[in-house]
Amino acid sequence: MPNALNFSGGPGALPDSVLAQTRDAIVALPETGLSVLGMSHRSAWFQSILDEAEQNLRHLLGLSSDYAVTFLQGGSSLQFAMIPMNFAAAGVAPPEYITSGYWSNRATSEAAKVVAARKIAWDGKSGGYRQLPALDSLDIARDAAYLHYVSNETVEGRQFPAIDRALPVPLIADMSSDFLSKPLDTTPYAMLYAHAQKNLGPAGVTVAVIRRDLLERIPDGLPAILDFRTHVTHGSNYNTPPVFAIYVLALVTRWMRADIGGLAAMQRINEQKARQLYATLDELGGAIHIHARQQWRSQMNVAFSFGDARLDDAFIESARERGIVGLEGHRSIGGLRASLYNAVTPEAVDSLCEALRAFSLERV
Amino acid sequence: MPNALNFSGGPGALPDSVLAQTRDAIVALPETGLSVLGMSHRSAWFQSILDEAEQNLRHLLGLSSDYAVTFLQGGSSLQFAMIPMNFAAAGVAPPEYITSGYWSNRATSEAAKVVAARKIAWDGKSGGYRQLPALDSLDIARDAAYLHYVSNETVEGRQFPAIDRALPVPLIADMSSDFLSKPLDTTPYAMLYAHAQKNLGPAGVTVAVIRRDLLERIPDGLPAILDFRTHVTHGSNYNTPPVFAIYVLALVTRWMRADIGGLAAMQRINEQKARQLYATLDELGGAIHIHARQQWRSQMNVAFSFGDARLDDAFIESARERGIVGLEGHRSIGGLRASLYNAVTPEAVDSLCEALRAFSLERV
Repeated sequence: MPNALNFSGGPGALPDSVLAQTRDAIVALPETGLSVLGMSHRSAWFQSILDEAEQNLRHLLGLSSDYAVTFLQGGSSLQFAMIPMNFAAAGVAPPEYITSGYWSNRATSEAAKVVAARKIAWDGKSGGYRQLPALDSLDIARDAAYLHYVSNETVEGRQFPAIDRALPVPLIADMSSDFLSKPLDTTPYAMLYAHAQKNLGPAGVTVAVIRRDLLERIPDGLPAILDFRTHVTHGSNYNTPPVFAIYVLALVTRWMRADIGGLAAMQRINEQKARQLYATLDELGGAIHIHARQQWRSQMNVAFSFGDARLDDAFIESARERGIVGLEGHRSIGGLRASLYNAVTPEAVDSLCEALRAFSLERV
Repeated sequence: MPNALNFSGGPGALPDSVLAQTRDAIVALPETGLSVLGMSHRSAWFQSILDEAEQNLRHLLGLSSDYAVTFLQGGSSLQFAMIPMNFAAAGVAPPEYITSGYWSNRATSEAAKVVAARKIAWDGKSGGYRQLPALDSLDIARDAAYLHYVSNETVEGRQFPAIDRALPVPLIADMSSDFLSKPLDTTPYAMLYAHAQKNLGPAGVTVAVIRRDLLERIPDGLPAILDFRTHVTHGSNYNTPPVFAIYVLALVTRWMRADIGGLAAMQRINEQKARQLYATLDELGGAIHIHARQQWRSQMNVAFSFGDARLDDAFIESARERGIVGLEGHRSIGGLRASLYNAVTPEAVDSLCEALRAFSLERV
């Protein structure tokens, strides 16, 4: 099972059972006898896939009908533009942004291109992006259009703890790299979104969950494709959606429901994987440096280094000989990164820990 | 080969050999041993796919280095917004639009949301969208930002003839439904674009070919993801691209080069298919109504009807019994539509013609 040993930061590993079904669907879907790649987005079959994908998400999240679920293109980067276009309309105070790492930094700077003003509610740059703020201790204007943050910083490997009560302003979260990795109380959120290529499927589709009352704030006159109401009204089938990516997302969420047994079970598996890897890194002590401070360590992305680029490269090579791949750190900070997305198995983490121990014994 | 009998308007049929390679790549790419769905967009493998996809397009089109090639998300619908955002900047006369059918109508109305003014250079609505103008006979302002048209109207089945000389204004064409179906002299164009799900691959990726001097007109301050320069500068790898869709596009364009032998050969096959189908429809005479006037008939999409919705439905059913699918007309005009995209084989057209003759004999 080489795919389970893929620790890529994304696009990441997908479950073997999903890959097997997808493989068959490329030539002939069992339901239609046709290639999934040639299925019309207006077909009854695709409508059933859209419906199932939405129902799986609603079931996994326990989502109320107060929220709309949409499937979009363009990744988080398009959301960084669409969110201020849609929700920072004139008449309310500027939106506020938490800048806690690479991705939230990008969200913050993109918003500045769309709105006349936006406030930085917290900036972790001076601390080297090693820590995170407590969301409910920030000084946010009560009439701010919204507060935006990134729940898990993929590059630096830091993760906010769960939010357990509503903030006084609409809360919008980019959850791209920890969505559906554990149960989520969605009620504190006005909107949350996640591209698929971490925990949900292949690159090319982004899930946006939007509380319906927020849709009423959208100004008229936006291009249809950039107006969230278009996608809600048309059930994510306004223009041709990425049929294949949504199909795989439906299979992955089906796997989470039926095979894994829901998000609490997913969380147990993910916590165990992260606990084991961090324990191994801590045990190897001085030889290894973990980027995030302990309390903010991400359960999804473990960013670390042997403190020497040559050693990091040598470890990547040594792991590759064991079939372990995808350990390169993000190009912005270098080093190593092991991403423990849902489809990475505990057995794969065993192999990685073994590789780390063997390498440390031999080379460090 | 049931997939070759898929006459869907899009997503459409793909070549069997491409489906076979794609099927294997879902579990393990021959080059990497990993699933194509888990390949990092920063991997050397994906860079080689991006490079090949671009080179295949450059080779097929004989494209000079004056043009940049990019792979985008969001389909033509996002282009309808991005084009006026990028190229209708203040200081030149308004862009002009040809409204010749369903899709160009949508492009025209979306532009109105982005720019203060845009001119309709020609409107085919009063003629029921059955004819097309001669592009070089239109009265276009010489300082117009650009002239936009849709080269093949998928819904109504009408197609502009090739443009063989430059117009006095930058010409921008949505070629989604006839791109790479025949040789193209790109020199008259400032920009052309096409989503993949007709002739190039699965839904989820859009090709944009942009003359580099046009990039200098782009105003600063657009969101990065909506600024064409971002995608050109980053070689279509600014944010995570739709890796899988681009992979299939690389295979399809490889097939066009290596198996078909280029666009002149593709054209011979496509013309023969269209000639045969129109001849059959003409031969069946009064029983069948073809939407487009003869001189504007599309080689890609044949929109027709038995003139009675019950007969149309009965034909769809009778064709389905022969394994022929995808004949439903677009929901906006109803009737029937046979799309003859590149991967629809001459044998599939034989089968369709036979089904038409048999049905007409029996029922009409």
